[in-house]
Amino acid sequence: GRLSPRLGSLLVHVAYFLAVSWLGYLVLAQLRFRAGGEGTRRPGAIDLFFTAVSAATVSSMSTVEMEAFSNGQLLVLTVLMFVGGEVFLSLLGLASKWSRLRKQAVSKSRRVEIHHVAELEMPPVAAAGEFDNPTSMTSTAEEEVSKPLDRFDDTRLRRDAVLSLFFVVLAILLTVHVLGAAAIVAYIFHASSSARRTLRKKALNEWTFAVFTTVSTFSSCGYMPTNENMAVFKRDTGLQLLLVPQALVGNTLFPPLLAACVRAAAAATRRVELKETAKEGEVLTGYYHLLPARRCAMLAATVAGLVAVQVAMLCGMEWGGALRGMSAWEKVSNAVFLAVNSRHTGETTLDISTLAPAILVLFVLMMYLPPYTTWFPFGESSGVKDHPTEETKGLRLLKGTLLSQLSYLAIFVIAICITEREKLKEDPLNFNLLSIVVEVVSAYGNVGFSMGYSCS
Amino acid sequence: GRLSPRLGSLLVHVAYFLAVSWLGYLVLAQLRFRAGGEGTRRPGAIDLFFTAVSAATVSSMSTVEMEAFSNGQLLVLTVLMFVGGEVFLSLLGLASKWSRLRKQAVSKSRRVEIHHVAELEMPPVAAAGEFDNPTSMTSTAEEEVSKPLDRFDDTRLRRDAVLSLFFVVLAILLTVHVLGAAAIVAYIFHASSSARRTLRKKALNEWTFAVFTTVSTFSSCGYMPTNENMAVFKRDTGLQLLLVPQALVGNTLFPPLLAACVRAAAAATRRVELKETAKEGEVLTGYYHLLPARRCAMLAATVAGLVAVQVAMLCGMEWGGALRGMSAWEKVSNAVFLAVNSRHTGETTLDISTLAPAILVLFVLMMYLPPYTTWFPFGESSGVKDHPTEETKGLRLLKGTLLSQLSYLAIFVIAICITEREKLKEDPLNFNLLSIVVEVVSAYGNVGFSMGYSCS
Ligand SMILES: [K+]
Ligand SMILES: [K+]
Repeated sequence: GRLSPRLGSLLVHVAYFLAVSWLGYLVLAQLRFRAGGEGTRRPGAIDLFFTAVSAATVSSMSTVEMEAFSNGQLLVLTVLMFVGGEVFLSLLGLASKWSRLRKQAVSKSRRVEIHHVAELEMPPVAAAGEFDNPTSMTSTAEEEVSKPLDRFDDTRLRRDAVLSLFFVVLAILLTVHVLGAAAIVAYIFHASSSARRTLRKKALNEWTFAVFTTVSTFSSCGYMPTNENMAVFKRDTGLQLLLVPQALVGNTLFPPLLAACVRAAAAATRRVELKETAKEGEVLTGYYHLLPARRCAMLAATVAGLVAVQVAMLCGMEWGGALRGMSAWEKVSNAVFLAVNSRHTGETTLDISTLAPAILVLFVLMMYLPPYTTWFPFGESSGVKDHPTEETKGLRLLKGTLLSQLSYLAIFVIAICITEREKLKEDPLNFNLLSIVVEVVSAYGNVGFSMGYSCS
Repeated sequence: GRLSPRLGSLLVHVAYFLAVSWLGYLVLAQLRFRAGGEGTRRPGAIDLFFTAVSAATVSSMSTVEMEAFSNGQLLVLTVLMFVGGEVFLSLLGLASKWSRLRKQAVSKSRRVEIHHVAELEMPPVAAAGEFDNPTSMTSTAEEEVSKPLDRFDDTRLRRDAVLSLFFVVLAILLTVHVLGAAAIVAYIFHASSSARRTLRKKALNEWTFAVFTTVSTFSSCGYMPTNENMAVFKRDTGLQLLLVPQALVGNTLFPPLLAACVRAAAAATRRVELKETAKEGEVLTGYYHLLPARRCAMLAATVAGLVAVQVAMLCGMEWGGALRGMSAWEKVSNAVFLAVNSRHTGETTLDISTLAPAILVLFVLMMYLPPYTTWFPFGESSGVKDHPTEETKGLRLLKGTLLSQLSYLAIFVIAICITEREKLKEDPLNFNLLSIVVEVVSAYGNVGFSMGYSCS
């Protein structure tokens, strides 16, 4: 028996990540570690492999000190993060789809030729029968109205759409990386002497730093070439605000950017396949990141709203806490940076463990939310309805019920964490998050368990 | 404009609960509290109203000491719990559906009469036209094959099915209550002298206790007429094991019981409407608790599995902890009782706050799961597929993705709570549930935040 396409695709992905990680590990192990790092431990073979896997899968679980890596090793890690990034992977998917569609078109055009030859030899009985039945005619005509192009043209259009989409995504990928790295380099050389001093002290090449950071941020990996991640740039608001848009367009805001670029390209080139791609979106190309315009707008609004909520809570609860010792502007910048990173990238300027429980619960919710979670206030008349495939329907229902239930529970837990924050600090033994979660979920599930805090 | 049916139904429910609670509160306030309770505080007006609402909505949030209530007041609370229970409410729904169907049938039979009269006067043009088109004929014939009864008969069948289902549910409701209360009374009077002594000491009427407990357990409310809930019957394994089946058939195991009773009734009476109800289930009657046979079997298996997991964890982790000081049999009985109650009823023999965090997280997951959550290993060929309405499809997807993701996360958190249970006990300040949840969800969401436990 053949493998199901889903399992096959999963196996291809796993094989890809394993091969890339293994190759990366071999190159990393061949290269020399940095000479004379004071106090940095050199990672063992297992840690090195784990770092390679972690970079290729953009998860940034760190067990090693990043400053142990030499310039060459950092560049290898950069390549790993680049080829492991979601956008690069989707580019590979588009390329493979295009080649599959081209093969299909070739075999189909051959079949059509054979069919034409056969038709000449055989009397067209079926065709004549069709003309006898007027209702059949009209139904065919109707089908053609709803489906503007017949199947053969459709495959060609699809192939061209996939190819043009490939180039649009490639252009975005290259532009964002070139602009991002150039902006960081320019910032280090011309705007921030403190950032330059920090890099000098750590003996990090500025160009390597800029490229590594850009790739890591855009691919939502979150590695930094420094031991302290972004904590060493806690007061460098310029760098933070340069990284924020990169983290956003590489993750949650990629669909709006892509939709805008496809529209712009369609308007500029006036090519049919780009216009159809802009109109039909995912249905035509099967590209997961291509969402309808309305959904893109709501996605951007959702992202902005979630960031705003997090910034407000961070500023409100940690202004005199974890953010202490900064200027007001630095506090806001740090809050924005942390809010953007809490969803998927995971770079941080602060020690997460010093944050208030209410904020940590909010972060847990943010980490749990899928990237393209969108708040849809339109209900039935939403943009998703245009192509009500089973999956989108299910997804909508899913978002509408389970996800919102979870969100309500999380909001209740957060609210109690805020109102009881003094008790949480003073009496963490009796009054902890677990007791609050038990109370809230017990009330939600109509169970009625109570922890009955002891006052000892 | 008219209200949407969903909002209308919600408003009817809210109005019902408010009316019942208010009426209950008025009667409770009129009746006298128990004379000379030593040390029990009498609840104020707000607490009393809250208790009435809590009983009518079967949530059993307790703010008062139950022993302050007199015998009459306990009976009022019993009535509130009975009319607030899910099964009783569904019975009201069936009755209202039956009366609606009867009205429809009456108006339809009138319309049919008018139609017959009109047909005699007008030439049957449309019917003649139909015969010209042979494809139309076949399609109609096919429709009739798939739909065995025409519309008029269908409404009558539906009405009869709803009525017979009403009587089956009523019979179950009455039988379970009569048998349950009788069993408890018999147990108190003839089997357990310690239970009788406890009730004497608390000056509780045995009959009131039996009826109150049965209604509270079957309706998943979880109130007990004692101040300590079931903790006072910690060593009374007989009473615990009498309440376990009541809690199950009133909640998660109601659909299997109902399906079995409908089948038995259909076999005994051989009535068409009962046979159709047993076959068509929810589609014919719209009764939410009537599930296909296969789903019922899997639901029962799921419930048994979840109870088994909880019992295993309770015995494994609390054998020498919260369950200390009992015999082995008592420990198992208490674990079973707690496992059954953790999903919705919420009666408890132990102090929940003394349990290990791993068990509390498991309880949170159990409380969160909807009652009819079913593990379906069949995939496409499942019993749900028989009627693939949009809702069941969405529900299946929902269960397949989000719910299982949540379960995996919970299982990871529980596993870490078990492996790190020593640290959780010794260093609860640095090593608490929140840090574990942050680590797990951060890994799940590919974020890479780390709390980096401080060792102070
Ligand atoms: K309850
Ligand atoms: K990451």
